[in-house]
This record gives sequence, C-alpha cells and structure tokens, in this order.
Amino acid sequence: MSNSIKLAILGLGTVGTGVINLINDNLDELKRRSGRDIIITEVGTRRQRDDIDTSITQNSDLMAIAASDNVDIVIEVIGGTTLAKDVIMQAIKNGKHVVTANKALLAEHGNEIFAFAEENNVHVAYEAAVAGGIPIIKVMREALAANKIDWLAGIINGTGNFIMTEMRDKGRPFADVLEEAQELGYAEADPTFDVEGIDAAHKLALLASIAFGIPLQFDKVYCEGITGITLQDVNYAEELGYRIKHLGFAVRRDGQGNSEDAGVELRVHPTLIPQDALLANVNGVKNAVLVNSHPLGQTLYCGDGAGAGATASAVMADVMDLVRVLGSKSGDEQNSSEKNNHGHHVPHLAFIPEQLSDTPILRAEQMITGYYLRVHAYDSPGVLADITRILSDAGINIDAILQKPAHKVGQVPVIILTLPVVESQMNLAIEKIEKLDTITDKVVRIRLDELA
Amino acid sequence: MSNSIKLAILGLGTVGTGVINLINDNLDELKRRSGRDIIITEVGTRRQRDDIDTSITQNSDLMAIAASDNVDIVIEVIGGTTLAKDVIMQAIKNGKHVVTANKALLAEHGNEIFAFAEENNVHVAYEAAVAGGIPIIKVMREALAANKIDWLAGIINGTGNFIMTEMRDKGRPFADVLEEAQELGYAEADPTFDVEGIDAAHKLALLASIAFGIPLQFDKVYCEGITGITLQDVNYAEELGYRIKHLGFAVRRDGQGNSEDAGVELRVHPTLIPQDALLANVNGVKNAVLVNSHPLGQTLYCGDGAGAGATASAVMADVMDLVRVLGSKSGDEQNSSEKNNHGHHVPHLAFIPEQLSDTPILRAEQMITGYYLRVHAYDSPGVLADITRILSDAGINIDAILQKPAHKVGQVPVIILTLPVVESQMNLAIEKIEKLDTITDKVVRIRLDELA
Repeated sequence: MSNSIKLAILGLGTVGTGVINLINDNLDELKRRSGRDIIITEVGTRRQRDDIDTSITQNSDLMAIAASDNVDIVIEVIGGTTLAKDVIMQAIKNGKHVVTANKALLAEHGNEIFAFAEENNVHVAYEAAVAGGIPIIKVMREALAANKIDWLAGIINGTGNFIMTEMRDKGRPFADVLEEAQELGYAEADPTFDVEGIDAAHKLALLASIAFGIPLQFDKVYCEGITGITLQDVNYAEELGYRIKHLGFAVRRDGQGNSEDAGVELRVHPTLIPQDALLANVNGVKNAVLVNSHPLGQTLYCGDGAGAGATASAVMADVMDLVRVLGSKSGDEQNSSEKNNHGHHVPHLAFIPEQLSDTPILRAEQMITGYYLRVHAYDSPGVLADITRILSDAGINIDAILQKPAHKVGQVPVIILTLPVVESQMNLAIEKIEKLDTITDKVVRIRLDELA
Repeated sequence: MSNSIKLAILGLGTVGTGVINLINDNLDELKRRSGRDIIITEVGTRRQRDDIDTSITQNSDLMAIAASDNVDIVIEVIGGTTLAKDVIMQAIKNGKHVVTANKALLAEHGNEIFAFAEENNVHVAYEAAVAGGIPIIKVMREALAANKIDWLAGIINGTGNFIMTEMRDKGRPFADVLEEAQELGYAEADPTFDVEGIDAAHKLALLASIAFGIPLQFDKVYCEGITGITLQDVNYAEELGYRIKHLGFAVRRDGQGNSEDAGVELRVHPTLIPQDALLANVNGVKNAVLVNSHPLGQTLYCGDGAGAGATASAVMADVMDLVRVLGSKSGDEQNSSEKNNHGHHVPHLAFIPEQLSDTPILRAEQMITGYYLRVHAYDSPGVLADITRILSDAGINIDAILQKPAHKVGQVPVIILTLPVVESQMNLAIEKIEKLDTITDKVVRIRLDELA
C-alpha cells in the first residue's frame, strides 16, 4: 500500500463539490492529523463540470470507478436509492470502503448494504446521513458506547425547524414561510419529504438502530409532519411556557411489567417542549439531538444539519477514520482471514450484527406521550366539566388548562395540557369529547414532552 | 489473546466506584457492542473498601497492578500528579494501555506522558479529563478531524457555572452561593482550583492542543477566576442583553499580516456573551463547548461535566475504543515492529507528534476581546465626554453605553461595552480614564464575546 489514500467522489452536486473544496482548503490539516496524503483520483459525474480543478478527471462511468484499482474509498454523494445503491454494492464487492451521506438509501436498504459490507470486510460509513455536520453517529456508536440509551429526541430536519422558528418568531403562517424556505433553497420544489417528516423518519430509523441495537425499520416509524400546525397553536403553546418543534423520538419502553407493551417507540411529530429547554432554543436551520442515557444522563449535540460545508465535514471525518483502518495493513490482511472478529472496528449499527435484537417497534396506539388539546366548544356552563370528566374517566391527568375569550360568537377554544398517556386511551377520550353536543369542531391534538 | 478484556481500576473514589457500577449495570450492553467480555481483574486502593463487590480483590500495591500480566488496560482515577503519574508511567513501560480522567496531570505532564506512550506503542486515553461525560475529546480529535478549527469557547468548570447561574437566577452574592456549592459537594473545601479558573485552565490546555496541533502549554494559559464578579455586574450585563459566564477560550489569530501578532490565545475568564446564545443558557453544573471550525461552522456539545456517572461514561468509552485496538492482534504486533506508523490510531494530541507546531501562545497584552467597563465618576457634565474621547483616541469603538442614576450621592456608574480591541490598547485607555479627576474608583472590566 502506498502512503496515499485514494478517494473517488461519485456525484458533483452541493455535497460533492463541498468535499472537493474541503480537501483543497484543509489539505495541510488533513495531512498533519493523518500523516497521509489524501488524493482524489476519480470523480464520477453524469454531466461534465468545468468549474472543478482540471487536474481531476471526470468520468461518467460510475460503476467502473466503484471497481477501480485506483481507489481506496468510494464517496457516494449522488443521492437517490437506485444508482446510488448500485455503485455502493459495486464498491463493496470490489473491496472498497464506502462513505455515504444517503439517509434515504440506508434507512430503506441499510440492513442489506451493511450485511454485504460485513461479508466483504469493508466499512460503510455514514456520519453525513444524519444531522449533517453534527457527529451524532460517532457520538452514539463510540462516545456513548458504554451507556444504555433510554431515549433520544432530535431536531433532524433543518427545513422543518426553519419553518417552525419563523412561524413563532415572526408570527407568519406555515404556507408563507414554506414559500420563503423554497426561495432560500432550504426546501425542495416538492417539499413533501421535509414537511411531512419523511426525511426526519429516515434519520430517526438510523439513530434508533444505533441507540438500541435493532435492525433498521424505517417502515415502522410513526410519522406526522408540520403542515397542520397553525399560528394559533404556536401562540397558545408559548403562552403556556412551551414551544412547538418538529422532533424525532426513539424511546425504549420496558412495558412496566407488561411485556406486550415493551418495545421501542419510533415517532416523528410536532411536539410541545418546555421553552427553557436548550432544544427549544435551537433555531433556524440548525439541527440538534438530545440523548438520555444511563449513567451519563442528558447530552445535547447541536450544529448545522445540512449544507455543503457541514456535510463535507462529516464525509471527510468518515474518511479520516477509514484512513486509520487502511493504515493498518496487517489489520487488512486479518480482515480477509478472520471473519466475525468484530473487535477491530465499530459495528455498522453500533452493536455487533449477531447481537441485534428483535425488540418490537410499538404501534401508534401503544405510544405514551403528553398532549396539547385544543377543543372548540359552545360557551355553555357545563362544557369544561364534561371534558374534564371524560379525561378523568380515561385516567388522563390534566397538567394545565387555558380557556381564552371567545373569538367567534359563542365559541371558545379550551386548551388542555395532559400528562403522558397511552395513545389508545387518548383516542377513546377524544372520540367521546367530539361526540359532546357542545363541541363544534374536531379536537386539535399535538404531542407534548417535558424532556425530563 | 483471550476473548476477555482485563481492566485494572486504580482508585476507588467517586469515579472508580462509578466505573464499577457502570460495568455492573451495563455489562450486557458492553458485550453486545464490543463482542468481548469486559472484566475487572484488579482494583487498586490504599484503603480497603467493604462496599465493593467481594469477588474483586482490592490491592494496595498500585505499582504492582500497573505491571501485572493480568491487566490489558489500566484505568487511573486516583487523581493528583505524583502517585498517578508513577502508576501511569509504570503501566506504559509495561505495555498497558491507560485510561485516565486526570486533567491536572495531563495538562502539566502530558507532553512527557504521551511521548513515553508513543515510544512504548500504547495509548493513553483521556476523554474523561475534559468536560466529564461530554465526548469533546473524541469529537475534536475524530469528528472534526477534517476541519480547521478557528476557535472554541467552553463552560468547562461545573462549579463556576453553578455559581454564575445561581447569582443571576436568584440574585445571590458570590460568597453565599460558593458556600452552598460546598455544602452540595460541587465545590471542594478549598475552592481555589474551581473559582480561580485553574481547573478550567487545565482543561483548556488540553482542548487547545487538540484543536490546533500544538504541545500542551498549561503554564501559558491566561487565567482569571470569578471571585471578583458582583451582582451589580451580573445585572447590568442582563440589562444590556448579555449574560456573564466563566469561559475558556482557545483562539487562532493570523496576526492580520503582522506575524508578531499571529499565534494562539489561551484564556480563561468571566465573559459577557449574548443572552440568546445557547451557551448562555447552559445552566447549573452543566458544561458545554462551542467549536467554530471551517467548513463545518459552529457546533455545540453540552452535558454533565462531572459526577460519577458522567465520568464513568467517558472512561468506559475510552475502554471501548481500546477494546478495538486490542481486538486487532496483528495490529498490536505491527505496533511493535513499525514505529511512527500513525495511520493506525488517533494521535494523542489529534495531530501526529512530528506535526505539532510551535505556533506561539500570545501574551495577555496581545489578546483581542470586547470589553464591559464599569466606570464610577462624579456626576460632572464633562465626564462622559472625557471617557469617550480617551476610548476614541485609543481606537476603541463603543458598542453600547448605559448610564444609571446615582446610587451614591454625586456618583454614577457608567457602563460601556466595546467592540474587540487589543488588550494593550485597553490597558492604556483605562490608565488614562483612572487618572481623570472625575473618576472615583478603579475601572471594573470584564471581557465580552459575541460568539459570532
């Protein structure tokens, strides 16, 4: 092995050019830290670009690059789940380590990709796939490796956080802010992945696997977006000392003696959290992940969750880790001869593959959260008594009530915050409340978490 | 090599027992992640303890344990800089990897210890030495490895942060809160290390080395404690939109064309920072480090900076990293045969030893910060004009002024916030201000940073 590390960059979009720029800007720093030359030997792009360093050959045959002898590490920053998957599998088959920023691909096909990598004794690194430049994958797989993780809560979609921040700070409605986010390039022309929570669900699936040692199960993530959040609810939440953020939660439940209710909650939804929580003060396009683990307690990681610089930083951190793997030549030989020796590298999903557990993912009805309820009722004397009785009968504890003056004649919203309750119980209670004669509209409900 | 990893724990104080408890609580998690048995084969303590698992032999001969064939990794949690150093050097000499939480020892003798470890092809891991359970060492050495770090600012002493938080939240004076901190066990009977900033300076020296690739230079850290902070200043700061935190700063200065002023600022001092910065909202005994790097931008890491659980988490994260090193047997053999191959492990100070630079540490007079000034003057018409003229003549830009009504007859404090200025300029200006006939007291000055 020569002293140089040879990189192929597949894809020359924002992230690919970000990686090239990082290497140009920080080459000296990379060498001083790794003791190695880091060189880009191949760039794969379907369209030739003339704004890239001309000493780098651009090649449109990505499958050939992924198999090239002139490459140690393949960086996949094409995106999508078709060609990206093909080139990654090709690279793995040819004994190349892979670095990818592709959360959708890993959330949907990660189990297969990681297993193939194990078989071929290569690593697929994916720091950039979750929360951009925040090193949450490294933190959870390595820094928290001695902890039992109880739960995590993350702002893991920058577009959604930008929208929620602007709605609150400037009192602007959802549609208006979304349009601005699109103009600023924060949101795609089709914003579905961001505003419906799908992008966050991809990332949550990855985080949950490395938190609990379970296979990737993107299809089981409960997913609610922010399209239904109104300024009215944003303002009521603030008045009660809370802030609405779009969060992904992964929570381990022991079932409190009832093994049927033991499992993992995977959910993405708008959530009221206390205003004074650090997470509530992570604004704009910033991302942050709060992890609660034993015995460490709560730790928070915050930074840019997207953008060329942040993503390139994460991609190249993975490369720097792989440089150490590649540096140990006898370690490589050992890889080929000794399978299933997991002592020498960080397992893809944090836990060694044969130790991944089949802990069930809980159904929505089994999930336990607090609630914010907005109930619209005719202003008749008994309505509050009716509502609170229904909640009380369902074993739901009320934490706060706010009854505002009527904004339509004869109609007043009642805001109720509850303590945590099993969703099936809340469903039943809401059904009953909506059947009351005095209730004029569907009950609006948003989950609430004290992050305690 | 057997499949078990054999640990020696030297010291059975808070941290040592925390490590034992962590291993008992999370043994299953440790095995699932590492694929190895983690066993404590030796415990070293000068006083026998009878509240520890009786299957573990307690031994008072720490030097013998550090050389024992029955040990792969020596965990030093004795503290202090004498015996702790002896046992670490003994362990290194005998080919054991070392994990330590000892910031004072590393800040003062780290260059020697790390060099000796390199010579003997072992690792000395020290995540727990800075910011307790926050994985700031791993983050900076590995996750930010592709970045050029411009500066960092950290709340890295929990006791100091507790005191500053209580002063602000409850309007209690310094001495009063310090007494409570001592009762709560947050502060030692002799609180000098915490309140004078020495503990923070130890940690800053470590952070600065791994940020910039410079040798440890604890003796060059400029250090100011919090004993001089009054409620009056806390309140004025709040009124102007700032909060006073005790921070450690490591800043890279390019000298703006003047190579004499190029270098690194290492400083620990109370600092006004914007109220809405996340760092300003890190309260109580929590620690947090904000790192500004290119191309990532700002990232923040927050959590418990002390305590048994947080420290044990960091110690055992280091052990889990070392398990991977120990897992690669041929890697070990390579270590003995190939010196100076740094590809295979993370360098102790993030940069490979021969690449550590002799970038100078700047003297206090060369440092550049904003300032909060509290000036007491007789309420004579020309005084404000005199002060502002002196500042202006010195090239110091005023950002804000607050003149409060007199609280003594004829005497009013004037509060001035300045933009960043070289300290030597500020010294001259303050000297001139204090010579004015209208000035009744020494000028109170506290540094200010916008964290931009």
